[in-house]
Amino acid sequence: MGYMQSWVKCANSAETDFPLNNLPYGVFSTGGTDPRCGVAIGDMILDVAAAEAAGLTGTTDLLGQGIWNPVMAAGPQVWADFRNTLTDLLQEGSSQEEELSSMLHPVADATLHLPLRVAEYTDFYASKQHATNVGTMFRGRENALPPNWLHIPIGYNGRASTVVVSGTDIVRPNGQTKALDADTPSFGPCKRLDIELEMGAIVGTPSSMGDTLSVAQAQEMIFGYVLLNDWSARDIQAWEYQPLGPFQAKAFATSISPWIVTAAALAPFAKPTPSREVALLPYLAENAPGLYDLTLTVDMAAPGGAPTRISRTNMQELYYSAAQQLAHHASSGCAMRTGDLLGSGTISGPDPHSYGSMLEMTWGGKNPITLADGGARTFIEDGDTLTLTGHALGDGYRVGFGHCTGTILPARK
Amino acid sequence: MGYMQSWVKCANSAETDFPLNNLPYGVFSTGGTDPRCGVAIGDMILDVAAAEAAGLTGTTDLLGQGIWNPVMAAGPQVWADFRNTLTDLLQEGSSQEEELSSMLHPVADATLHLPLRVAEYTDFYASKQHATNVGTMFRGRENALPPNWLHIPIGYNGRASTVVVSGTDIVRPNGQTKALDADTPSFGPCKRLDIELEMGAIVGTPSSMGDTLSVAQAQEMIFGYVLLNDWSARDIQAWEYQPLGPFQAKAFATSISPWIVTAAALAPFAKPTPSREVALLPYLAENAPGLYDLTLTVDMAAPGGAPTRISRTNMQELYYSAAQQLAHHASSGCAMRTGDLLGSGTISGPDPHSYGSMLEMTWGGKNPITLADGGARTFIEDGDTLTLTGHALGDGYRVGFGHCTGTILPARK
Repeated sequence: MGYMQSWVKCANSAETDFPLNNLPYGVFSTGGTDPRCGVAIGDMILDVAAAEAAGLTGTTDLLGQGIWNPVMAAGPQVWADFRNTLTDLLQEGSSQEEELSSMLHPVADATLHLPLRVAEYTDFYASKQHATNVGTMFRGRENALPPNWLHIPIGYNGRASTVVVSGTDIVRPNGQTKALDADTPSFGPCKRLDIELEMGAIVGTPSSMGDTLSVAQAQEMIFGYVLLNDWSARDIQAWEYQPLGPFQAKAFATSISPWIVTAAALAPFAKPTPSREVALLPYLAENAPGLYDLTLTVDMAAPGGAPTRISRTNMQELYYSAAQQLAHHASSGCAMRTGDLLGSGTISGPDPHSYGSMLEMTWGGKNPITLADGGARTFIEDGDTLTLTGHALGDGYRVGFGHCTGTILPARK
Repeated sequence: MGYMQSWVKCANSAETDFPLNNLPYGVFSTGGTDPRCGVAIGDMILDVAAAEAAGLTGTTDLLGQGIWNPVMAAGPQVWADFRNTLTDLLQEGSSQEEELSSMLHPVADATLHLPLRVAEYTDFYASKQHATNVGTMFRGRENALPPNWLHIPIGYNGRASTVVVSGTDIVRPNGQTKALDADTPSFGPCKRLDIELEMGAIVGTPSSMGDTLSVAQAQEMIFGYVLLNDWSARDIQAWEYQPLGPFQAKAFATSISPWIVTAAALAPFAKPTPSREVALLPYLAENAPGLYDLTLTVDMAAPGGAPTRISRTNMQELYYSAAQQLAHHASSGCAMRTGDLLGSGTISGPDPHSYGSMLEMTWGGKNPITLADGGARTFIEDGDTLTLTGHALGDGYRVGFGHCTGTILPARK
C-alpha cells in the first residue's frame, strides 16, 4: 500500500511518525479529564472514544474504557474492520471531516498514559550479538552463547507491575551487590544502571491453559508493537542472577512507548528472521516473515544537555521473531492472555555503535561513551535522560513509534 | 487463644481442619450458581456474600464479587474486624444462629474455585536442604549452594495465568529437552514430571513503585497463606534454565489449596526462622517470628490405587520467611500488588522422607519410591494423583488448609 494522504494536513509530512499509514493506538487525557483512547494522526490525536459514542467507528463499547484491552480481546477481524474504518474517516475527502475535527486534540496539549493493562510481562533474549557480548563478559568467550540459545528462544518472566509509559521518571534502584574483592555483600544504590533497547510485542487474543500454538497462530494473536526499555541494574544482576535468572535487577522499571503500532501498520515492512545456523525444531519454524525493517536509536542527554545519539540498530538483528517466542511461550500449555507483553531482548548489531545496552557499548564500563557536550559515561548517572526511537521508512513517509524516554531520579534513602 | 466452640457442631471435632479458630476464606458455588465468597466451618461453608447482603458482616460491597481481592485490598483493620465479627457470628451462643443456618452449605455439595485473582506469581527458593539437594544434582557437591543463597532470599517471577485451584486436572506438558548423550534437542511430552511442596503467601495491601518495605511492613501486608504445588518438568528445566532461570518447565501449572488461611489464624503457631549461618543485611532482619509450625505432607496415588504418604515435613525447614521475601521483592522499588502470590520454594527437611520433590526423594530418578499398592515411581505417571496437606496443632484442635490435589492427564498430541 502506498503513501496515503489525510485531511489532517500535518499527517502528510515525510517527517511525522504518524501518517495515515500508521494510525497507532494510545491513551490520552487533556486538562485533567479521564484518560481515553486516542489514535495519533500527525501532530494530533483523534479521540476515538468520542468517535465511537457518535457512532462513527463501527464498534460498540470497545473504546470507552480508557484502555485498549477490550479492542485487543475482540480479535483480528475487529482489528481489521476498525483500522479500515479509521482509514476511511481520516483520509483526504472523507465526508466526516467536519464532525471529526472537533474530536482532534494537539499531542502537545495531551498527557499520554499506558495504552494497555499489562497482564504479564515476559522478556526474551533474541539478539545473537547481545547474547554473545553479555555471555563473553559474564562467562568468558568460550561459554558466551549458552548451549540452548540456537535451539530455544529463551526468556524469563518479568514484572508487570512496574511497566510504565514513556515520560515516567525512573528512581534509581537500591539493591544487594557484592564487589568481586569483597567478602560480603552490601545494600545501596545501583552503581551500574543501564538501558536495554527492545521491541515489545503485545498479545491481543488469548490462548487456553493446556493448548499449544503454531507460529502462524501466534502471529495472528499479536496485536501490535511498542518500543521497550528494559532498565537494568547490572551490579544487582551479576550477584543475584544465578541460578534463577534476573529478578530485582529488572523489577524496578520497564518503559514503553505511548503508541502501540499495529501489526497491520508494520506489515509492509515485514522481513524474515536470519538464516538458521542450526535447524529449528518444527514447532518453531517461521511460516511468514516475523521481523520488521525498523531503524532503532538510543539518545542520551546529561541534565540540561543536548542529546547524543549513542546507538543505531535495526530490529532485523533479532534471531527469533515475537511469533516464534509466543509459540515457545505456549509450548508447555502456558495460557497466554490479552495484554501479555513480550520483550524481544536487547537488540544489538555487529559493532559498538549498534549495541543496545551501555554494558555492551562501554564493554562492561571499560570504554566510556563521550557525550556531545563533552561529558563521558560508563553507566547512567542521576538526571540523565535516555530516549529510544524507532521507525520504518516507506516511499515518502515513515511509520514510527514516537519516543520512549525516561529520566533517572536519585535513589531513595 | 484457646480452642473455641461453634454452634456448627461439626466444627468442634479435633479432626477437622476448619474449627472456629481457623475460618479460612474460599470461593464456592452450588448447583451451577455464580461463584461466591465463603468461609469454611467444619464440614460446612458459610455464604458470607449472603451474610453481607443481610447486614451481618460489618462490611459493605466487599464480599459480593466472588473473589477475595476486595477484602485483601481493604487492609489489616478490616481483616481484623471482619474476623472478629465472623467469630462472634459462629461461636456457640450466637444470637444469629437461626438466620445464619440458612446460609450454610455442605462442602460436599459445593464446587470450589480459585479464591483470589492472582496478580503476579513469584517463586522463591528458601529451603536450604532443597537448594543443597538440587544444587548437588545439577552442579555438583562443591557448588551446591549458590554464593548468594545465604545473603538473598533468591527467587524468580513465575506465571500467574496458570495458577489453578486444587482439583483441577493437570495436562502433562510438552517441551524441548536434550538428552545428555544427544547432539540435538527434541520436542515431546515431559518425562520427568514432578511436584514441589510449597507454601504460598498472599499479598493483601499494595506498595507503590519506588517504595521499599521493612520486614515489619511486609509482614503486615500478608493477608494469608495457601498450600502450593509448583508442578515442575525437570527435563525441560535442565535444558532451558541457564542463564535466565526456569521458564516453560514451571509455566504450565501451579495448584493452590481452595482455602486461604489467614495470617491471624496462624499467629498462635508462629515460629522464628532458623539461626543465621552468616549475618543478614539489615533490610532483611527478622523483626518477629515469620514462619509457622505447620506439618506438611505429600500423598501419591496411582490410578484407582490407595494413596501412599511419600513425604512429611514442616514449614520451619525454610530459611527465609514470606515477610523477608516480600521485603526483598520490593527492595528495588518493585511495586507489589493486591493478589500477588509468593511461593516459598520447595520445603525439604533433612532426610528423604521429608523432601518436598520427587527429584530429591528419588535422587534424580535413581531410587524409586514404592507405593502402597506395590507400584514404583521415579517421577509422576499419567493418571497419578498428588495431594498436599498442611495443618498446625493447637490444644485439642487443628488449623488446616484442606487439600491441594491434582491428577495428571496425558500430554496432548
